[in-house]
Amino acid sequence: MRISDLSRRSGVSVTTIKYYLREGLLPPGRQTAATQAEYDDQHLRRLRLIRALTGVRGLSVSTTREVLDALGEHAGDTHTLLGLALGSVRVGEEPAGDAPEAGEVRALVEELGWDVHESAPARATLAETLSTLRSLGVPVDRHTLLPYARLAERTAELDLGQLDGIADPLEAAERALLLTVLLEPALMALRRLAQENESARRHAN
Amino acid sequence: MRISDLSRRSGVSVTTIKYYLREGLLPPGRQTAATQAEYDDQHLRRLRLIRALTGVRGLSVSTTREVLDALGEHAGDTHTLLGLALGSVRVGEEPAGDAPEAGEVRALVEELGWDVHESAPARATLAETLSTLRSLGVPVDRHTLLPYARLAERTAELDLGQLDGIADPLEAAERALLLTVLLEPALMALRRLAQENESARRHAN
Repeated sequence: MRISDLSRRSGVSVTTIKYYLREGLLPPGRQTAATQAEYDDQHLRRLRLIRALTGVRGLSVSTTREVLDALGEHAGDTHTLLGLALGSVRVGEEPAGDAPEAGEVRALVEELGWDVHESAPARATLAETLSTLRSLGVPVDRHTLLPYARLAERTAELDLGQLDGIADPLEAAERALLLTVLLEPALMALRRLAQENESARRHAN
Repeated sequence: MRISDLSRRSGVSVTTIKYYLREGLLPPGRQTAATQAEYDDQHLRRLRLIRALTGVRGLSVSTTREVLDALGEHAGDTHTLLGLALGSVRVGEEPAGDAPEAGEVRALVEELGWDVHESAPARATLAETLSTLRSLGVPVDRHTLLPYARLAERTAELDLGQLDGIADPLEAAERALLLTVLLEPALMALRRLAQENESARRHAN
């Protein structure tokens, strides 16, 4: 397809596509004339992934390039691909500082028997939340979180199940990213509605 | 207790407490001298709730006053109290516009058999998310959301269970608000870690 078709099908402007080509985020098309090149579905998939990484995860162009390079190096390894797309596997440095509650999170992960990277940013998020709640006089420890974590396991099974049947690993990485990040407000909204329903069940006449 | 003790125990500055007193958010203390008043635990609990409504929910002072007034009118009705604190029961006008996916959300709620207000803002959030995902080429309908909603029911049981044993209804409302809003990042972090673990289970060697 021509660059204009690539733009139409991806929803990314021709100007931005040319910028990605210049920056090396997108490999060049097959030159068919002095000022014309042909692009294929591989370009389209990569463009969608770039859009998800920059738009949904908010990565800079240079970090996006690092993630894409790392994805290329782990092409056959779906687990690492998903980790890179979702941010649990970091590229570059970005060392995670140890929050005061990091030990509590480590103990929780151990108790759950979960196989997760030491550098996963979600660990820090968890530790920060525990610390915030403590400072507001609502102490929440790993014993409180444990049943929530068991429900999260079942949520994750649903999430990963939605990637079944997607053969292309880059497409799976993009889909995982979109579903993970964009479903968050929906899942939180479901929790609020469910709370209201549960409150009605318990307290309403 | 004196106003300085109320400040120390609530973490709210004396200046802000005086502002809440002037604005009628906090009832006056018992005057003990020309320039001195005594405050009690009821003031402390109310102050914590004000802090949660303005800080965590981000309400304006005037909306906070409306919510507090409404709470006073429904003192014996825990279900309405929780709804007011969490925002599923609105005060004032704020009519919810109908998003294109509102019908899909209504069908989902019906299928679940949930008892939730027609005006609950979470309905709109849910409809907006469905619409965003659709525009990005990831159609998610109510059949996809249904198993997530069933897990949300169990999460809500855990949430409401944490309020057991809190006798004071204003304290329960504040706790519900803090746990609902502040636990959100923790629950999303647990989902990400669980996804990583599930991905390892499925794809890693």
